[in-house]
Amino acid sequence: MLIVKKFGGSSVADKERIFHAARRCVEDYEKGHQVVVVLSAMGKTTDGLIAKAHEIDPNPPKRELDMLLVTGEQVSVSLMAMAFHVLGVPSISLNGAQVEMRTTSTYGMAKLKRIQTERIRNELENRRIVIITGFQGINKYEDMTTLGRGGSDTTAVALAAVLHADRCEIYTDVEGVYTADPRIVPDARKLSEVSYDEMLEMSSVGAKVLHNRSVEMAKKYGVQMVVLSSLTRAEGTVVKEGTKMERMLVSGVAADKNTARISVIGVKNEPGIAFKIFNMLARNHINVDIILQSVGREDRKDISFTVARSDLQEAMTLLNENREAVTAQNITCEDGVAKVSIIGAGMLSNPGVAAKMFESLYSANINIKMIATSEIRITVLIDEADANRAVRTVHDAFDLAD
Amino acid sequence: MLIVKKFGGSSVADKERIFHAARRCVEDYEKGHQVVVVLSAMGKTTDGLIAKAHEIDPNPPKRELDMLLVTGEQVSVSLMAMAFHVLGVPSISLNGAQVEMRTTSTYGMAKLKRIQTERIRNELENRRIVIITGFQGINKYEDMTTLGRGGSDTTAVALAAVLHADRCEIYTDVEGVYTADPRIVPDARKLSEVSYDEMLEMSSVGAKVLHNRSVEMAKKYGVQMVVLSSLTRAEGTVVKEGTKMERMLVSGVAADKNTARISVIGVKNEPGIAFKIFNMLARNHINVDIILQSVGREDRKDISFTVARSDLQEAMTLLNENREAVTAQNITCEDGVAKVSIIGAGMLSNPGVAAKMFESLYSANINIKMIATSEIRITVLIDEADANRAVRTVHDAFDLAD
Repeated sequence: MLIVKKFGGSSVADKERIFHAARRCVEDYEKGHQVVVVLSAMGKTTDGLIAKAHEIDPNPPKRELDMLLVTGEQVSVSLMAMAFHVLGVPSISLNGAQVEMRTTSTYGMAKLKRIQTERIRNELENRRIVIITGFQGINKYEDMTTLGRGGSDTTAVALAAVLHADRCEIYTDVEGVYTADPRIVPDARKLSEVSYDEMLEMSSVGAKVLHNRSVEMAKKYGVQMVVLSSLTRAEGTVVKEGTKMERMLVSGVAADKNTARISVIGVKNEPGIAFKIFNMLARNHINVDIILQSVGREDRKDISFTVARSDLQEAMTLLNENREAVTAQNITCEDGVAKVSIIGAGMLSNPGVAAKMFESLYSANINIKMIATSEIRITVLIDEADANRAVRTVHDAFDLAD
Repeated sequence: MLIVKKFGGSSVADKERIFHAARRCVEDYEKGHQVVVVLSAMGKTTDGLIAKAHEIDPNPPKRELDMLLVTGEQVSVSLMAMAFHVLGVPSISLNGAQVEMRTTSTYGMAKLKRIQTERIRNELENRRIVIITGFQGINKYEDMTTLGRGGSDTTAVALAAVLHADRCEIYTDVEGVYTADPRIVPDARKLSEVSYDEMLEMSSVGAKVLHNRSVEMAKKYGVQMVVLSSLTRAEGTVVKEGTKMERMLVSGVAADKNTARISVIGVKNEPGIAFKIFNMLARNHINVDIILQSVGREDRKDISFTVARSDLQEAMTLLNENREAVTAQNITCEDGVAKVSIIGAGMLSNPGVAAKMFESLYSANINIKMIATSEIRITVLIDEADANRAVRTVHDAFDLAD
């Protein structure tokens, strides 16, 4: 078997954890498997480097910031190689440039384009464990790029895809994917299996277990992911194509507090206005989530949507600068809001699910500000102060506990 | 003009020093010069990384140690680029792989083989300051290598050579090259000029201002080096081909306390023994300095030499393991010794110099254990405890003070 194992920053935060992670790799290596290890930067290294950059330059050039940040993973992989050396197992570390992990040129949020596999294959055939820097690559200018926060998951899945790995194991500090955040809902239950689509919906609404792009890529290339703990031996959650005929109605509840709402009030009721707004935001790399358009009066309408809280200020600046172009009478925002979502492939054929969610929130006296649904997800926007209570209420309503 | 400026670790140790260094570069840039900056890792970063490695693995694979260490300079160059950004000057940072700074494959002490200049030239022509990682390169396996301690000086001179730079400025925490270490001899005098050969002798006997390989390379390619302070505006010391007809007899006195003596006692008086000893040490990358061979008895002789103190243990292990092969009756060592040297091109034609040095040491009651001379240097091995006193005594004897 060829196994890709990805360890996040907390799983390589210190000497003990590095050895702990190394031993889990050696176990598979000694069974005769080929092992590729993908690592994030140790602990809070990336945050530390960003702070260092900001000390010098509050608005550092993105190319140079990437040049700085990629050192974090390089430190991890070389130290891991030393751990394997101590354990008596041959290994080699490779950074994004050495692998030739080609990406687009957008610094700070590059996308993987192609990965050279020759060197990795050679090293694996020489019975070495190959340790690869996550989160990074190299663009056409031979400059370092980073894939954005959580990009190491994407690196791992991409490697699993191009190497036709049998498994892609994502080690984290939780034991898998839960029906809700166990810190909010103490009796949340760990799922043994979840489909790509459910995982995607969960990630996009606040369940921070996996980076969404990694799940999209896993789905596209049929990479079987396993989310499991680097600290315990508990079986994790398998993320794969949904196959179970009898699915649970709802797989999980998630809350995303990192949310702000923007309303563009009284725009002209003519084609192209919504396009203008969202195109402008997209060009500035601001992701927009729940979108709601009022049916409104004849000639004017309101468009509301949510953005990540960190993007709120930039989005408001952009919108205010372009207020005339988008024909807005007013632009308002609110940042004390949270999204609460239920996810489950079973919802598709069960029209009563939404009603049940709304009813449970109503009975808990929680006001719903906006509603958005996908085929397998229902999301409501509520006051942030109500978020944890809402998750517990909905979790109970759908009887998701152990 | 094209100017290469190298800043050592202490010159980029924190935000203030980074900006200080950046401003000195901007001054030249704004005069219309092309500026290439070579940086070491910040402050004690390299030591910190080595400590991190040793925490995991007391004997880390050298390839992986280099993979780890090269991150230090990459952090420096990206932060420096941010400083230039704040100062409003366009710049770009490049690491050893991006430049294509090709080296031999010996990790930890690689030698530069060739440097691609195309990208550097392009960036300079686009009126950017180009900031390059010192101390590192890339070998034929596309793996990171380091040039050994102080290798950033070598990087700077090599770049100055291939780019045909007009000057290669080495910024340090001293104001230039002195007749003796000012911490030992308070009235030591700064030299305005020193020849490559004198500088080489000074470096090799303990004056730590410049990395010896850098001076050798500067001599070979005729690169004019200037040693100057990153903190003050004092004129530095120019290192160049010796041209002054009337040279001072002695340019400086230096002490090297990082010395140990080894004696291989009673080896057979036959050809090849010395070769065996020194070849064995060289293959293990142990540099040998002063070598003394006793004329001795008919069939047996003693061979003594000095090594860096950090190499003593390894050298002794090697020698003891090969004691029969080198026909030694006994092997002894001593690590409380120091080398004290006088350097000066003027010594060549002045046979009284050595006598004067020995006399001054004798009158100060300092015992000489070994003597070695080159055309422009005289070195004595003495007790480490006497080293500073010896430097002051000799400095006085040759009247080198201000």
